[in-house]
Amino acid sequence: MPKHPGPRDERGVLAARILSAARDEFAEHGWAGTAIRAVARSAEVDPALIYHYFGSKEGLLDAATTPPQKWLDSVTQTWATPKAELGERLIRNVLEIWADEDVGSVLRAVVLTAAHETTTRDKLRLIVERGLIGESTLGDDEDERLRRSGLISSQLIGFALLRYVWKIEPIASMSDDEVVAALGPNLQRYVDGDIAPN
Amino acid sequence: MPKHPGPRDERGVLAARILSAARDEFAEHGWAGTAIRAVARSAEVDPALIYHYFGSKEGLLDAATTPPQKWLDSVTQTWATPKAELGERLIRNVLEIWADEDVGSVLRAVVLTAAHETTTRDKLRLIVERGLIGESTLGDDEDERLRRSGLISSQLIGFALLRYVWKIEPIASMSDDEVVAALGPNLQRYVDGDIAPN
Repeated sequence: MPKHPGPRDERGVLAARILSAARDEFAEHGWAGTAIRAVARSAEVDPALIYHYFGSKEGLLDAATTPPQKWLDSVTQTWATPKAELGERLIRNVLEIWADEDVGSVLRAVVLTAAHETTTRDKLRLIVERGLIGESTLGDDEDERLRRSGLISSQLIGFALLRYVWKIEPIASMSDDEVVAALGPNLQRYVDGDIAPN
Repeated sequence: MPKHPGPRDERGVLAARILSAARDEFAEHGWAGTAIRAVARSAEVDPALIYHYFGSKEGLLDAATTPPQKWLDSVTQTWATPKAELGERLIRNVLEIWADEDVGSVLRAVVLTAAHETTTRDKLRLIVERGLIGESTLGDDEDERLRRSGLISSQLIGFALLRYVWKIEPIASMSDDEVVAALGPNLQRYVDGDIAPN
């Protein structure tokens, strides 16, 4: 158990171990219920190392719930898909993202921590608004763009919760192809279908 | 501030006040972080009254996260709607349910508490499986019925989270008619559309 910061090349490994433990603790016990000491014990590091790396409990929470750059890159790439294929592409992106342990663990922690921690709820709102809604180029004007993106988010987030966080069957064990066939056309309607009242 | 159980006709009023306070506390602080004393203070009753009414902290959580009978009745009624109108009826039911403070406050508490409390997560799973999925008469066999109902749940839960719990715009302020026009046809496809891979 290291009692002080390791050499430079150890830092990445230790930081990742701390963040992984922090995600579990925050998701399970919330902001108020999580102690740096408990995170340190679970990560098998000295509490001082957590302060050294992340400055404070606030800094630790922030780092633990910030999605990796590769998630943002994959979202950007998804939104560059031709509009006619976007419905299918959006759900395939969700399947790929959550299958990637680095990204899936952060998204899971954000959703669970958001339930009882205001800062994280704001971050979740930002992830949805910037990450999902912000990148989109849907609709004829800003209002329609935000509405279509919000509807897409509502379906993707509900699906991710049932499949990955709450693990409700049979959603949790549908094959990727079954998921794409089921959700793709519904997402496509939010992309370019008629969604306004008559 | 009553120091002991009131007469029989006061019980409903006091119990409702205690449950309302408990929902806020559990949702905010989680199971471990919630003290009966804090609930009593917020409800302006003596802690002994809470034990008298609900037996234990477990009993209090159970009562605070059990949806009222009128919710179950409304779900039963919804599923009795002719299949061709079910998509629209399902989303109208969600709009009505959440507008009813008695029901909306319980559903909100269940979703938020479920994030960090295993018992409540099981209850949420039950609400989805029995309340939403269990009542349904969709599809040709049990497997298809569960799949279609699960897809419907994924859309309705994601929508309710964005609109009522996280209050993400513009979903939070769309009119009821806009919501029905946007979500109804998508839900209808999950009810009786083609959702299988080619």
